Amino acid sequence: MDKGEFELIGSIKERFETPQGVVGIGDDCAVLRQHDGVETVVTTDMLVEDVHFRRKSSTPFDVGWKSVAVNLSDIAAMGASPAGTFLSVALPPSVGEEWLSAFLDGYQYLSDRYGAPLLGGDTNASPRKICISVTALGECPAGGSLKRSGAVPGDIIYVSGYLGDAAAGYRIIENGLGGGYFEDIEEGRLQRPEPQLELGLKLRSLPGVHAMMDISDGLASDIRHIMESSGVGAEIDTAALPFTPMFKSVCSKYGWDPFELALCGGEDYQLLFAAAPDCEVPRGECTPVGRIVEGGALRWLGREGEDFMGYRHFSGDSI
Amino acid sequence: MDKGEFELIGSIKERFETPQGVVGIGDDCAVLRQHDGVETVVTTDMLVEDVHFRRKSSTPFDVGWKSVAVNLSDIAAMGASPAGTFLSVALPPSVGEEWLSAFLDGYQYLSDRYGAPLLGGDTNASPRKICISVTALGECPAGGSLKRSGAVPGDIIYVSGYLGDAAAGYRIIENGLGGGYFEDIEEGRLQRPEPQLELGLKLRSLPGVHAMMDISDGLASDIRHIMESSGVGAEIDTAALPFTPMFKSVCSKYGWDPFELALCGGEDYQLLFAAAPDCEVPRGECTPVGRIVEGGALRWLGREGEDFMGYRHFSGDSI
Repeated sequence: MDKGEFELIGSIKERFETPQGVVGIGDDCAVLRQHDGVETVVTTDMLVEDVHFRRKSSTPFDVGWKSVAVNLSDIAAMGASPAGTFLSVALPPSVGEEWLSAFLDGYQYLSDRYGAPLLGGDTNASPRKICISVTALGECPAGGSLKRSGAVPGDIIYVSGYLGDAAAGYRIIENGLGGGYFEDIEEGRLQRPEPQLELGLKLRSLPGVHAMMDISDGLASDIRHIMESSGVGAEIDTAALPFTPMFKSVCSKYGWDPFELALCGGEDYQLLFAAAPDCEVPRGECTPVGRIVEGGALRWLGREGEDFMGYRHFSGDSI
Repeated sequence: MDKGEFELIGSIKERFETPQGVVGIGDDCAVLRQHDGVETVVTTDMLVEDVHFRRKSSTPFDVGWKSVAVNLSDIAAMGASPAGTFLSVALPPSVGEEWLSAFLDGYQYLSDRYGAPLLGGDTNASPRKICISVTALGECPAGGSLKRSGAVPGDIIYVSGYLGDAAAGYRIIENGLGGGYFEDIEEGRLQRPEPQLELGLKLRSLPGVHAMMDISDGLASDIRHIMESSGVGAEIDTAALPFTPMFKSVCSKYGWDPFELALCGGEDYQLLFAAAPDCEVPRGECTPVGRIVEGGALRWLGREGEDFMGYRHFSGDSI
């Protein structure tokens, strides 16, 4: 770090406007006013260099973007609106002003886009690797946030968007394949995921949406969270899983099993939810992929007998 | 890590009881109900191995304790009560179950003592070093939290407790001195600071306390934050600084300047505040050390002409 710490903090403070009525950067704590009939949702996620990203394959802008995105994805999964974020970074001597500035550009870009101001944080030295921790706060009407626990037998299981692109992008980058042709998958889906905030709000306001979460470890792992929290079983119709043409083309080109990637690869940051059959789910954005059943078992229709497990990694999971 | 991640998260969840009406560990976000007339204060602090602690000189219990303590100290500095914490950890393969379990013991001990339940977090792999990030939430009556910005000329400047012990403890450990004789300073003040939550609440409810913060970088650095935020100057009477007998004895034994340590060493986690002359500050716990004056200058009475700068480190400072 060339810049003095106070100068760095000053430059961070300048980038982010604190909303009216909120005390943001510059005191021991940020201060937010409470209101009856509202609830606060809070989530935190850490990104560690060489575990969640590599400096050689992710631009600092991408890392800044993703640090915000993965946290806002959890806010979206509750059906809440973002209220602000807190950023702690540990930076090794090898990180210069240029990296940090581009990181903050990405962080700020996504923060601005989704109205999630930076309200505080902590800057630190690190011996060798970058470590980034973000905490995001959101708000929604009291009692209205969508948990993992409300699914009931008979519900239809939906996912938003498409699955597998990020996992394919990761495999392309780690194996040195691609070289621009699959840029849309690499850059768009893996490096710069879009938190589904608008859709999350829409789904929270729909009668009949019973349980929701975001897909970060892969559908195969994450559907089990809804099953466990709700005390139900599930059937997933593998033929119904939504894939992009480019994803199918990549899998075909390299002989990869699209189901393996889409179910176990993770990092989709799409919404996974269970809704009553008569719920008016926006069909353009969401695809029905199965149903909630009695019991505790998970069945893969079309791939019976297989046991997709999702990504049981130690590279980042919620407490 | 020997244990699977899900087992680890399960064991963390078991340790912490979620308060009534709060959704804690186990969903995409924690959920806390809001109330009119209340404000939420939020702070975050990171502890990085070999920057903030070393595995050879800090027990895992101490590191767990301190991770909570430094955050609750910021909550105390606003005059707020803790509502809960969020813990993200990045753990290298060299950290075994035993270290983690003792770390959680320390984290839980201090959390329980101050009624600050763990409400969520994130577990991660790390290439080599431990990185710990804690976010703490607190509450106080709306408009009641004590900022750094309210000091006015004529106010008396107070500090709670004693200064310099932690800085001396750090120097003892880093230089391999001590060996038990100064255990009280090493262990008590440096490794296991006590957040001044009860005193913070008391001071917030007293009419006449105008500005407050906690001392983390040393009085010389931190008083400047109050001066800048309040647009005032300050005079510190160095002869009035509160020292423990053991601190004086250590400084005398090794020929250390107690003022240098007490003003610049940091890690005191005591409260620093400015109050009207007629404010009924609890004198047993707090010592008057100077006064707020017009202008923007800082004078060290008794050490005129010297320029104590505090710890302008890059090892951890608030955004």
